[in-house]
Formats: sequence, C-alpha cells, structure tokens
Amino acid sequence: MKRSKVGIVGGTGYTGAELLRLLLVHPHVEVAAITSRSEAGQKVGDYFPSLRGRTDLAFSDPESGDLDQCEIVFFATPHTVAASQVGALLAKGIRVIDLSADFRLADKDQWEQWYKVTHPAPGLFGEAVYGLPEVHREAIASARLVACPGCYPTAILLGLLPLLDQDFVDLTSIIADAKSGVSGAGRAAAVGTLLCETSENFKTYAANGHRHLPELIQHATSSAGGRPLGLTFVPHLVPMMRGMEATLYIRRAPSGTSESGNDAGDPLSPQAVHDLFSRYFESEPFVDVLPLGQHPETRSVKGTNICRIGIFRQPGDGPIIISSVIDNVVKGASGQAVQNMNLMLGLPEIAGLDYTALLPG
Amino acid sequence: MKRSKVGIVGGTGYTGAELLRLLLVHPHVEVAAITSRSEAGQKVGDYFPSLRGRTDLAFSDPESGDLDQCEIVFFATPHTVAASQVGALLAKGIRVIDLSADFRLADKDQWEQWYKVTHPAPGLFGEAVYGLPEVHREAIASARLVACPGCYPTAILLGLLPLLDQDFVDLTSIIADAKSGVSGAGRAAAVGTLLCETSENFKTYAANGHRHLPELIQHATSSAGGRPLGLTFVPHLVPMMRGMEATLYIRRAPSGTSESGNDAGDPLSPQAVHDLFSRYFESEPFVDVLPLGQHPETRSVKGTNICRIGIFRQPGDGPIIISSVIDNVVKGASGQAVQNMNLMLGLPEIAGLDYTALLPG
Amino acid sequence: MKRSKVGIVGGTGYTGAELLRLLLVHPHVEVAAITSRSEAGQKVGDYFPSLRGRTDLAFSDPESGDLDQCEIVFFATPHTVAASQVGALLAKGIRVIDLSADFRLADKDQWEQWYKVTHPAPGLFGEAVYGLPEVHREAIASARLVACPGCYPTAILLGLLPLLDQDFVDLTSIIADAKSGVSGAGRAAAVGTLLCETSENFKTYAANGHRHLPELIQHATSSAGGRPLGLTFVPHLVPMMRGMEATLYIRRAPSGTSESGNDAGDPLSPQAVHDLFSRYFESEPFVDVLPLGQHPETRSVKGTNICRIGIFRQPGDGPIIISSVIDNVVKGASGQAVQNMNLMLGLPEIAGLDYTALLPG
Amino acid sequence: MKRSKVGIVGGTGYTGAELLRLLLVHPHVEVAAITSRSEAGQKVGDYFPSLRGRTDLAFSDPESGDLDQCEIVFFATPHTVAASQVGALLAKGIRVIDLSADFRLADKDQWEQWYKVTHPAPGLFGEAVYGLPEVHREAIASARLVACPGCYPTAILLGLLPLLDQDFVDLTSIIADAKSGVSGAGRAAAVGTLLCETSENFKTYAANGHRHLPELIQHATSSAGGRPLGLTFVPHLVPMMRGMEATLYIRRAPSGTSESGNDAGDPLSPQAVHDLFSRYFESEPFVDVLPLGQHPETRSVKGTNICRIGIFRQPGDGPIIISSVIDNVVKGASGQAVQNMNLMLGLPEIAGLDYTALLPG
Repeated sequence: MKRSKVGIVGGTGYTGAELLRLLLVHPHVEVAAITSRSEAGQKVGDYFPSLRGRTDLAFSDPESGDLDQCEIVFFATPHTVAASQVGALLAKGIRVIDLSADFRLADKDQWEQWYKVTHPAPGLFGEAVYGLPEVHREAIASARLVACPGCYPTAILLGLLPLLDQDFVDLTSIIADAKSGVSGAGRAAAVGTLLCETSENFKTYAANGHRHLPELIQHATSSAGGRPLGLTFVPHLVPMMRGMEATLYIRRAPSGTSESGNDAGDPLSPQAVHDLFSRYFESEPFVDVLPLGQHPETRSVKGTNICRIGIFRQPGDGPIIISSVIDNVVKGASGQAVQNMNLMLGLPEIAGLDYTALLPG
Repeated sequence: MKRSKVGIVGGTGYTGAELLRLLLVHPHVEVAAITSRSEAGQKVGDYFPSLRGRTDLAFSDPESGDLDQCEIVFFATPHTVAASQVGALLAKGIRVIDLSADFRLADKDQWEQWYKVTHPAPGLFGEAVYGLPEVHREAIASARLVACPGCYPTAILLGLLPLLDQDFVDLTSIIADAKSGVSGAGRAAAVGTLLCETSENFKTYAANGHRHLPELIQHATSSAGGRPLGLTFVPHLVPMMRGMEATLYIRRAPSGTSESGNDAGDPLSPQAVHDLFSRYFESEPFVDVLPLGQHPETRSVKGTNICRIGIFRQPGDGPIIISSVIDNVVKGASGQAVQNMNLMLGLPEIAGLDYTALLPG
Repeated sequence: MKRSKVGIVGGTGYTGAELLRLLLVHPHVEVAAITSRSEAGQKVGDYFPSLRGRTDLAFSDPESGDLDQCEIVFFATPHTVAASQVGALLAKGIRVIDLSADFRLADKDQWEQWYKVTHPAPGLFGEAVYGLPEVHREAIASARLVACPGCYPTAILLGLLPLLDQDFVDLTSIIADAKSGVSGAGRAAAVGTLLCETSENFKTYAANGHRHLPELIQHATSSAGGRPLGLTFVPHLVPMMRGMEATLYIRRAPSGTSESGNDAGDPLSPQAVHDLFSRYFESEPFVDVLPLGQHPETRSVKGTNICRIGIFRQPGDGPIIISSVIDNVVKGASGQAVQNMNLMLGLPEIAGLDYTALLPG
Repeated sequence: MKRSKVGIVGGTGYTGAELLRLLLVHPHVEVAAITSRSEAGQKVGDYFPSLRGRTDLAFSDPESGDLDQCEIVFFATPHTVAASQVGALLAKGIRVIDLSADFRLADKDQWEQWYKVTHPAPGLFGEAVYGLPEVHREAIASARLVACPGCYPTAILLGLLPLLDQDFVDLTSIIADAKSGVSGAGRAAAVGTLLCETSENFKTYAANGHRHLPELIQHATSSAGGRPLGLTFVPHLVPMMRGMEATLYIRRAPSGTSESGNDAGDPLSPQAVHDLFSRYFESEPFVDVLPLGQHPETRSVKGTNICRIGIFRQPGDGPIIISSVIDNVVKGASGQAVQNMNLMLGLPEIAGLDYTALLPG
C-alpha cells in the first residue's frame, strides 16, 4: 500500500517530537517534511537522540516548499502560526491538522479577547472541525481543516459527554478541577518550568480563568444541545512530565427527586452513571471506563492515546464524581491528531496508536 | 529557663522524625524520651543520619517507663495505639498530644464505622480538644489531651473557616478537591508508595469517602454553628514527598442576590472575600493570605508551619475558589502539634517553628 | 505463522510486568501462562491497569501445570526460585530464560559466598549460557538454559568489550562507577525504596562489594582471554524509576608508549577508541556508539533495548572515559531476555523490541 | 550586639536566594542591600513568596549606591560581574565574598582559556583567598577578597584532603566521579534544565573537561605540597534539585608494599583511612566522617552546610573509595560563603548555619 505523505510544521517542541515518535513508525504514512526555522538543516536524529536511526530526515526551512508534497500537514506551533499559513496550504489542496488553539473557538471576538492578539485568518473559523473524534468523527473524516482540542478540554469533555444531554443533571454548577504535568507548558526556555521550580511543588494557576475555559464551555454547551451551562475550571501544575487528570463534580438537577445517591432507580447513582458511560463509549477504541471502585491513574495511560474514566460518589446526596485521565501529549495533543489523521485518510482509527504504558514508567 | 521535658511515642515514622527535627532544637523544651518497639536501644543519630550530632538519645522500649519523666507526651503512632495508652499517662498527670486519628471525632460509633475497629478508650472522647489553634486556642492551652487534626482537615478548614458562619454562603454544596504528597501515607513498607509506583503518576484515591471526611464535616459543621452542611472531599496523590493543596469551591446561598461576582457590594466578590479572610486571620502567626491574583505554591511552605491561602473567581456567577497550601508533615501534623505544645506550656506560639522554605527545595 | 507459546514465572514484579508489555504484542509468540502464587486467579488486566484490554490471561498458580504447554519459560523471580524449578522444566523439553542471578556465575562456591544460601541446582551451572547476545549469540541460539546478565554487568560489559582484548589497555585498574534508577531494587514492599526515601536523594550503596562484582569480573576476564583483571565497581542510586549509566575509566597499559592521549597514532585517543567501538558494534542491532562529543542520556533509551555509548578523554594522559546507558528493565533485564528468546526461536533479533523512547518521558 | 551590614549583588538566582534564606535570620548580621538589575524596586517578599514576612527589603539597582553602607558584599553573579566591580568596593574598604568563578584560579591565562573571555581584573588574583575554611581558615579571617570554591571542588577536595600529603597515595591516578542536582546549573531560563528535560534522566556532561577541573587540580596540587597530580573529573546530572555526591578512587603509590587492602598495618585499609580522616576533621564543625560501612546520602545534608564522608574498599588491592556528599547550594555555595563571612567577622563559625535536613525532604 502506498504511504500517504505528511508534514509537520514546528518539529522541535514536545508535540512535534511526539508526532515524530508516532508517525515515523506509523504503518501507513511517511513523514516527508518537518520544518523548524531555528534548526533548519539539522538531522532530526542528531537533534533528538531518541530518534537516532529512525529517520534520515533533516529539519527544513518553513519557506522551503517541502510541505507542498504532503497530503496532510500538522501544525505543532504556538498560536497564530497555523492561522497565518493554513490558507495557502488549503489552496493547494493540502489538508491541515492544527494542534494549536487557532481554530478551537467558533467566535473571532471571543478568541481575540482570550488570546489578546488579532486572529490572522478569521475567515477559516467556519471551515474548522473540532477534532474530538468521540463527538465529530464523521465531520473530521471529510474535513479540510481540523482543530485539535486542548489537552484540558479533551480530558474534561470525555468525562462529561455522556451526562451533558441528560435531564437529571444540573448543567449550571459543573466543577472541573484539573491537573497537568509540566509538559503542557511546552518546550520553551522559561524559569517557571525549570526542574528546580516545579519539582516537589503543587499549585493552582490561572485560577481566575484559563484560556481553555471558553473552549470547554463552547463545546460542552454544544453537546448539551445549547442549554445554558455553568462550568468552573481550575488547572493545577503537577510535578511530573506527562499526564493529566480531571476530577469532575456534577450535581443533580433541582427537579431531580431522589434523596439518596445509591437508590437503584437513581440516574445519578454510581451504577447508573457507570452503565450510561459504558454504553456511551462502548465502541470507542480509546476510552476505557473502569469498573466501579477503581481509581484511574495517569501512569496507566502514559505514552498511549487512551482516556481512562472512574466514577465515584460519597455518602449523602452530593455530586457524582468523575475522574478522567489522559496523557496530555498523546490523547491531549499528538495522539489525538494522529487519530484524526487516520479518520481523514480512511485508515483504521487505531493505526500507529497501539501503545502500552511502561510500568514503572 | 528550665526546659520542659517531652516524650515521643513512635519515633521512627515521618511525623516522629519531624517532631525530632523540630523539638531537638526547640529553645524551651528537652526531648527526654523517644520510644520505638522495633528500634529500641538504637541511637537516634544512627537511625536518622540527618540527626547525627543533634542528640545522644537512643530509642527506648515503650514499656521502659522513660515517658514518666515527661510533662507532655506526643503520640506519632497508627490509630488505636494512643487510645490504648493515653489513660495511664493522664492518670500520672502527663498531658498528651495525639497526632493520630484516635480522638478527632466526637462520636464513638462514627469513629468505629470509619476506622473499622473497636475504640480502646471511648471514655476519653469528651476529654479531647481538637488541636486546631485557629479555632480552639484557649481550650488547647488548658487541655490534658489534644487531638491534632488530620492533614486534609487542617488545609481545608483553614480555607473555609472565615466563610462558614456567613449567611451568603451555600453550606450544602462545598467541594474540597485536595492533593497530598506521598509522605501522607506514612513510612511503612508498602508497594503502593514506592518511588516506582508514585513517581510520574497522579490519581484520586478513596474518592468514595476518605476517613478525613467525617472529621471535616464534624468540625466544619461546628464552625458553621451547627447548620447542616454538605461537603464533598476527594483526595489525590501527588508525585512529591511533602506538600498539600486544597482547592475549595463555595457557592452563593440561594437567597444571595447578586448576579455578578465582581460587584462592589457582593460579599462573594474576590475583594470582599479577601477582606474577610485578611481580618479573620489578621493575628494568626501561621496563616498568610496572599494578595489577590497570587497563586499559593506548596514549596513556599515546605518545612514550615505556614498555611498560605489564595482567593479566585472566574467570569460568571460561579463559586468563590479558595486555594490553601500547607506542608502536610508540619502544619498538617508535627508542626501543629508543636504549636499546640507551645500553647499548653504557655510559650510563644511560634517558638521553635520559625522556619523558611528552601528555594529550590 | 504459528506463534510459539511462552510462559512467565513471577509475573507481578517489574521484570515480569515488562516481559508482559513486550511479549503481549510480540508478533511471533503467545504468552500462554503467567504464574504468581500471591495473585493466582486474578486477571492480569485487573492487576496491571496498563494492560487492560491486552490479554484475557489470569495469573495461575505455579503448581497448575500451565507452564507445561510452553516452548520457553522465563523466570522473573528472586534468586533460588529458578534454580529450584529449572531442572523439571528442562526434563520436559522446555527451554528456560532465567532473569535472576541463579546461573550467572560459573562457580558454585563463589555463588554461595555472595548470595549466602545453598545453590539448589549446582549441576546446571555447566548448562547455562550467559545471555549477553553481543558475546554469546551463537551459544544462546542453541541453549536450553540462558542466564540473563545483571543490569550493571550489561551496561558495563558493553562499554568495556572492545577494549578487553587490547594490549594497550591496563586491565588491572578498571573503574566502573555505575548509577541505577530505583526499579533495579524490584517491586517488593520496602522502606528503602519508598518515594519519600529515594526522591531528591543520591547515594552510593554496596560500595564495599555488590553482588554484580564477581559476575562482572568473571565475564570481563573471559572476554580478556583470561588475563588477570582488576575492576572496582561502585553502584549508586538515582532518584528516578528507570535508567542506568556506567562511567568507565580505563588506563593505558604501563607498556604503552604515548605521552599524549590525543596523538593520531595513540590507540587510546578518543578517535581511535571511537573507531574501535564503531567497528566492534557495527552490526549490533541494539548498541549505538554516539559521535564523539555527544553525551549519552538514559532517557534516550528508556523503554527500549538500546545501549548508547559515548567516548571521552580529558587533557593529559588520563584514562579513556566511556559512558554507557541502558534501560535497566529492558536491555538490563526483560528486553535482553526477549532478545535471547528471539535468538533461541530463530526469529529476527529485533522482533518485538523496536521501541522509541518518549520525549519527554 | 550591633549587627554587621551585608549586601548581596545578584539576588534573584539560587545562590542569591539561599544567601537571603540564611542571612535574613542570621543572629549577627543584617542584610542592608540586595541588588538586581531586572527586579529593581520589587519587594523581595513578593518575588520570593517563601520570604514573605521575613523582610521589607526591595531589590535595588546595582548603581544605587546601597552597597556602600555594607561591611561585606556577596557576589552571587555570573562570572566576570564580580571581577568588574570588586575593585571599586575594595577601594571603599568593603570586603568581598565572591561566589562566582572569577578568582578561584591563580593563573590569568588559565582562567581565560577555560572561561573564554578576558578577565576584567587580573590584578586582583593575588589578593583573593580561596574560601575553603578547612584549608585556609586563617587567611580567610583577614582577607579582603574571598573566592568561594566551586561546588564540585568543595565536595571533592574535602574527600581528598587528608590523603593528599600522604606518601602511600598515588597522586597521579585520582578519579573523581561526581554527580550534581540540577540547581547547579542556576536559575536562568534554559531548555536543558526544564523539568521535562532533566526528570527521569541521568547523564554525564562536560566529560572532556569541566571548568572546575583546573580549579580542582590547582588546589589539590597545593594541598599535595606541589607534587604533580593526575586527576580525572567527570560530572553527571542527577534528576533532583539539590545535592552533590563525589565518588573518589585513590590508588596506592607504586612504592606501597601491602598486597592486601585490609591488613592491619596497611595505610590504605578502610580502618586506617577512617582514622586518618577522623583525626583530620576532628574539630571541623561542618565535616562529618561516617562510621565504616555507612553510605552518605545527599538528603541527609540537604539545606545544611555539612559535608558527610564515607570510606569503602572492595576485595583485592584496588583503590580506596571515598564518597563525599554536600548540598551544592549550601556547603557548595551560599552556606560556605556565610561560613567565610563568619570567619571574616570573627563570629562563631556555625552562626546562622545550624540547620537540620528535612526527612523526608
């Protein structure tokens, strides 16, 4: 079978490196170009010793035209870069998978308010499909431009989806307390992400409102059929490299009648919610609902494209508690991008994504 | 000034080691005895190389009678040990500071339900004072038996206290999403707390109900004047040694009138809550309310008895968000025990507790 | 192609878990049995959540006879277990790959002196082939019993091999300063390997003589053609899970004539040693000699079966310096065992071992 | 007692922060000025939350003249900064303690060769006293300019000192295999020291010759009475924040006669070397020679000014093995600087340096 040629813009960051790890051994595609302004000319295997022997490719200059031979181009770049370049690629018939935030929001004004810069290609908002396969699988398959979700929205939306269109759920008081490894901050030189600043430390950040909040609310609202939704999202920084966990607290709608959270007929009982989740994700290749009582751990999904979900409830009529874990660099970024690519190319959805986490790891 | 003699039961765990670190250089007390059944006879400085040169003390057998010379005895032991031995010490006029869970709950049946064992000294429940100085300072000073709070209740209660007796707060929907370093699990040999099982990993645990939940609810209810209270508490394990953070979500009472969280007259605005907290903790030596906008970090309190608190709110009328950090081994255990001892002996409350966190550290 | 059936004795430790990770997706074998006395009856996927969906296998009792169907059985057990059971398996025509220390030494008395216990099967010493494919590839292919090298000897021998039969080398003064991640200590519950005892800590251990010392000396001496050899080996514990580095210091033989280490004709010049290593390992699938000037990092081999080697020299006529890195759980244990299995079954040597390290990871 | 005023140039790095931690609670000095070009005007307690409440001091501009009121000024700056400014301070009668490399070497040409820049004040080389109190205590007390040793030379020299003037030692083949936590690389934004680049990783660096090599050789040669000395020094990076360990391998001089390393009369036996070290460091407040058989751990000295030393030997006539541990930021930098300050001011040498390491910590 002929391999499809793909390219990567911005290959020296963590999402770029992860795309390389996944794509260089993907059975059905060939990485034909990888650009980096700063490392142009350098062999990929010299720059990333872990890739020695995997490829003879060198980084090329973004202006080199190397991307023109590709069927699909990934952008693993800071925001605004993709938006500036996507138009030209689409015009050449090249499809684009953007891992940045450029096309995740539907509204230009909201985007510019949160990202505090003028959007370079507002005309493409309508074109972009939100790359969460569990929701938009069919649209992704035929999309020209896919906007991969942020890592936090991926972990949180997968933990909320089955509940969002249920009448017994109070959509106005959702809490998403989320935690991320440090790789989420990227590979740029910065004091704040030095080992000596993040090791043996835990903290909230952006607690007054993180950029993923409007993305979350927009796509959760959409899955809730447009009903108004109140969602509080606080991110935290965990002293580890990879991994993301979101603990979600979802209350009963005021009209809900049960006094006890564990009644057989209570739709918010752990068993009922577990049944709901199991049915919802039954045929999903990358969502694993754990048996009741088991706690998901980020290490069990490290290096994989899997989202693991646990369901809990405490004595009394408090919220149902969902814990959702992903690898922020895989299902939260590059793995999900490859999953989208598989859909776009008509490949098996798990092609090149069948990894097992290391233990220990 | 003559130094008061103090003793420690159970000196080989992390809370015992921390008591030693703090008490061996405390200006007003002398560690006269430290017991350990397993290490009896061994020099403390040989067992803990970090204490070489600090003391000539050896661990003594619990039956040796060495504790009888002490004015105050600390129990840094698993639950039921203190309860089994406290009676005899009190009868000799020795005061006791218990770092274990034996006397934290007021109700014997509830205690036995959560700890799944018969309580060895139910008659002492009425005697014990809950050792949270910010609430019970005066009772502690004259107590014969102090029950030091659990680490989670310490971090959470300090972040809730100023709000618990406020009418504008909805007491029925409090969320406490808490995270702890691994030292909270103690120093016992166990697969689950090996470096290879906890490093590069983040997870919930006991999400269906942790033993600190009834303790939390009991003492929060008490500070709320007995009004009914709904509190959901989910603990998480962080890949670090020390440190604890609690993110608290507190909603407006249904009778509250403001639509916007940031109005000048809104008691749930960040500024109003900040004012409330600042006044409440104004004279507290170990509670530091951060300026609005600053995020507390566990590393800034590592090795210290300080609790740092940050206050946040997101766009919309969602909950006020409190982030509270402590060192679980110090303010969450041994430091708070020493603070209680200072109160009991009429010493300055900060005596022997004036430490600065390392950076990096 | 029909898959060969293989079995694992002792599946709940780190080397057992790693064998499962590698073998469950190996293209040419089928894991037919995995024993564990303590977990008999439990599904592997329930015990190791990272393996959920990978296998329906349950742990079986060691006495169950499940191993009898296997062509090859791996022992991932503490020492003496394999020695006690290997005889019976060999008698049934089952070949054995032992990851423990039971058959690494040639001399029974020496073995008993270092392991301080009676060897259960001294008659099998002569049968065992030392499973370092870079030295014993052909013997391994036809062996009935393979003794996989210890992790330290693997990293150190690969860094020494090309030099051991060279006249210009002083064999009597070799220094091997080696460092290991904590997984080397295994998955047993133990205070010494808790996160709280090993994180933010670095130390020597067994500096007066580690059990891998006689193994090292025996096999280095063998590769040196029996010439007497002096080797000092000090292990250190690194606060990480996986990874091993050995820094080797090798001096010029007294008869060597060069005064300067960098002369063109000097066999101990970095360029000459680099040439020697490159030739020696030219066709090795799992040994990667880095270009001069590059420093090997353990993370570049994490999760892989690769050994990376760097070569250095400082101003003056000091020793040549070799730095050798492996993943102690893969090339240092389970990966090398699978490499040996591939040889024994006539499979491509890299079958099922073609992994890339995560970055970050 | 009147407190001496001291100042710090370069207060925002790790050594500056550590000077602040130590000096702000030092019983006999007052920090009167701390400069930082980038943070001038900012309150120290706002910049370093761990110092909230410790000081009202703000960073001042280096040109502000604030340093003129000081009796002693510390430089915690990159190399060449101190050399450029020391002359003016000395001229005003202000004594200087330089934590940088500017005055550690005696030879201008050698300095410029290793630091690859013109030295700004070569005339001051003769003035500087090498700030290793265990060797130069008296000269430090009266010095105007003290050059604090590098972290590696501190750990290594303390482990070598008692042996350097012994005839039975082969000075020409010393190996120093040293390992450092990441804080040694400083607090500058850099990709190489991000948590995601250093966690779960171990590696050599600068193995062809680190800048501390000439410093080491110069001062070791001096302590060896000028006898020629061959020393190989390889640094390694450990995935932790603080801590440094050096494993030293020292061989018997060729004229040495013993065949066995453990003979009673052998000066290179562990017992004899232990006796030698114990006598040598008998009255040193910050050097702790461990009992034979105990392995020093970096965590036991974390946050303290202590150097712990262990002594080992393996079967055969190999080298004596010394393991020396320090906290690279304390005894390896700021703590040693304060120790020097104490000497210069005639204060007790341990004033303000009497800390105990946290456990865990």
